[in-house]
Amino acid sequence: MVTTDICIIGAGPVGLFTVFEAGLLKMRCHLVDALPQIGGQLSEIYPKKPIYDIPGFPSVNAQELVDNLKLQAEPFKPTFTLGERVNSMTRLDDGGFLLTTSDNTSIQCKVVVIAAGLGSFEPRKPELANLEHFEGKGVAYMVKDPETFRNKKLVIAGGGDSALDWTIHLASIAERVTLVHRNESFRGAPDSTEKVFDLAREGRIDLLLSANLQAVHGNGKLNAVTVAGKENVVRNIETDYLIPLFGLSPKLGPIAEWGLNLDKSAIEVNTFDYSTNVPGVFAIGDINTYPGKLKLILCGFHEAALMAQSAFRFVHPNQKLSFKYTTVNGVNTF
Amino acid sequence: MVTTDICIIGAGPVGLFTVFEAGLLKMRCHLVDALPQIGGQLSEIYPKKPIYDIPGFPSVNAQELVDNLKLQAEPFKPTFTLGERVNSMTRLDDGGFLLTTSDNTSIQCKVVVIAAGLGSFEPRKPELANLEHFEGKGVAYMVKDPETFRNKKLVIAGGGDSALDWTIHLASIAERVTLVHRNESFRGAPDSTEKVFDLAREGRIDLLLSANLQAVHGNGKLNAVTVAGKENVVRNIETDYLIPLFGLSPKLGPIAEWGLNLDKSAIEVNTFDYSTNVPGVFAIGDINTYPGKLKLILCGFHEAALMAQSAFRFVHPNQKLSFKYTTVNGVNTF
Repeated sequence: MVTTDICIIGAGPVGLFTVFEAGLLKMRCHLVDALPQIGGQLSEIYPKKPIYDIPGFPSVNAQELVDNLKLQAEPFKPTFTLGERVNSMTRLDDGGFLLTTSDNTSIQCKVVVIAAGLGSFEPRKPELANLEHFEGKGVAYMVKDPETFRNKKLVIAGGGDSALDWTIHLASIAERVTLVHRNESFRGAPDSTEKVFDLAREGRIDLLLSANLQAVHGNGKLNAVTVAGKENVVRNIETDYLIPLFGLSPKLGPIAEWGLNLDKSAIEVNTFDYSTNVPGVFAIGDINTYPGKLKLILCGFHEAALMAQSAFRFVHPNQKLSFKYTTVNGVNTF
Repeated sequence: MVTTDICIIGAGPVGLFTVFEAGLLKMRCHLVDALPQIGGQLSEIYPKKPIYDIPGFPSVNAQELVDNLKLQAEPFKPTFTLGERVNSMTRLDDGGFLLTTSDNTSIQCKVVVIAAGLGSFEPRKPELANLEHFEGKGVAYMVKDPETFRNKKLVIAGGGDSALDWTIHLASIAERVTLVHRNESFRGAPDSTEKVFDLAREGRIDLLLSANLQAVHGNGKLNAVTVAGKENVVRNIETDYLIPLFGLSPKLGPIAEWGLNLDKSAIEVNTFDYSTNVPGVFAIGDINTYPGKLKLILCGFHEAALMAQSAFRFVHPNQKLSFKYTTVNGVNTF
């Protein structure tokens, strides 16, 4: 059980900056993200792209911005649950909340801040009979901890950067990696593509091109996959794990069931403090909507700052909020 | 006569970022500031102080932030009128505005954005009979262009960083600099204090400590000042200029007379687009107020972004606004 002042759903740029703004008001934060790393879209979708509209940065690499925001949040010691989706939110008798994740992690908090961007990133799954029976029992849609795969047999499927990068990384950790891709060429970085072809040439991985997953097999736990290759050659591959990396697509998911007022798939908030219709629950960043809303990172930062002022009343109901500027004393006095 | 799409009153961080947000929507900006340089409070009051609450910067020097914002605005070619205060705003027949400054510069624009922070910085003036008769005729409260003082005789009065820094800088430009200060010690940086004492020791400036301005003299133009020093020694100093540098204090000034709804000395705006009660006039940053308002630079950035969307309708009434992210194509395609 994690206990915290504020539970932030979403560890993207806006969630990370919330740690800073909450920290200034002496509120501690725990962040939950469905992705295995912080940074949200910036780290997952366009880590190497420059962003031009962050105030004060004529240009900043998306991952660099995430790294900076992490550094800025660090004095306030945030904690994280990554690679898990928040599935339920329940009101407790004391007015706080109990959140439960897809992996049954429980988080007790006084305030919930939904900073979930486009929603939680859900993996695109191959259409294979009985695939869901092996989820968590050999089928993994993301690599949370590479050590899980040490000395194991793996089949990775996909042709983008994720598939290439994890093939390269896991080649030296796993007993054996087989990369299955439906085309002859890859969509990933030329550099990574070259490395994968090198590994195959050196016999350090098996590379099956123009090949498709056809079936999964096992008894309680995955033990083999069937792959259909060129000229209808079908082969059975013994494996401990199947890691389909076909991309992620964002879904609002369980949040839609929490009694929050929605406009399409955005959460309605007011512009006084970006609170939702549920007291103690705030929504900031791309996931919220209000008249004039722009889905810009810089707007989420503003929303985080105003939200924190109101969150304070829930976290410290008997204290008076004193607003101080950081320029005077730095962050260590907060 | 300057003609522009948007006239921004105030060239502080929020005014500068407005150039960027307006530029993305193909609107050109002219900035007016009462100070002789851009950057507002950051450059004038605390250029060397670190700021900790700009998102993405764990710490940033105030002047460095201003420099970055200037660089970020540059692709959109802003123009500037510095060292002049906007005195009047008149509605034109075509729905636009005519602004006139303290130095009679005229600016014609379609939209006025007031990003004036605490107001225009007005000099604290010494209490001397007839001082106002010599303003602009030998009495100057700020140094707009050091070249004005080349080979002239100057009396500088004050004991803070401005007085010290300008004494040091102008010592090598002016014919003669006399620094008058009412105490024996200075409030400025130790480093600058030391330099000033060195200059005095070397005979390159005249330094009058425990001395006070007592009178100004001249005939249409300043030609001497009277200074009362230690033990009531009174001396007359021949001079071309008197530059009292006793600090600046912000004043809302003429803006208060433009028919804008005010709450104390802040301009009331809505949070849809930070528009005021006067169509075509917006107020952003520290000078505005609305429920939940926080006087943070990062909030001004957000306000600039939302404001620009509405300003577009005044600048390009017949065009449809298409919202694009900079990450995709950079700023050069805007």
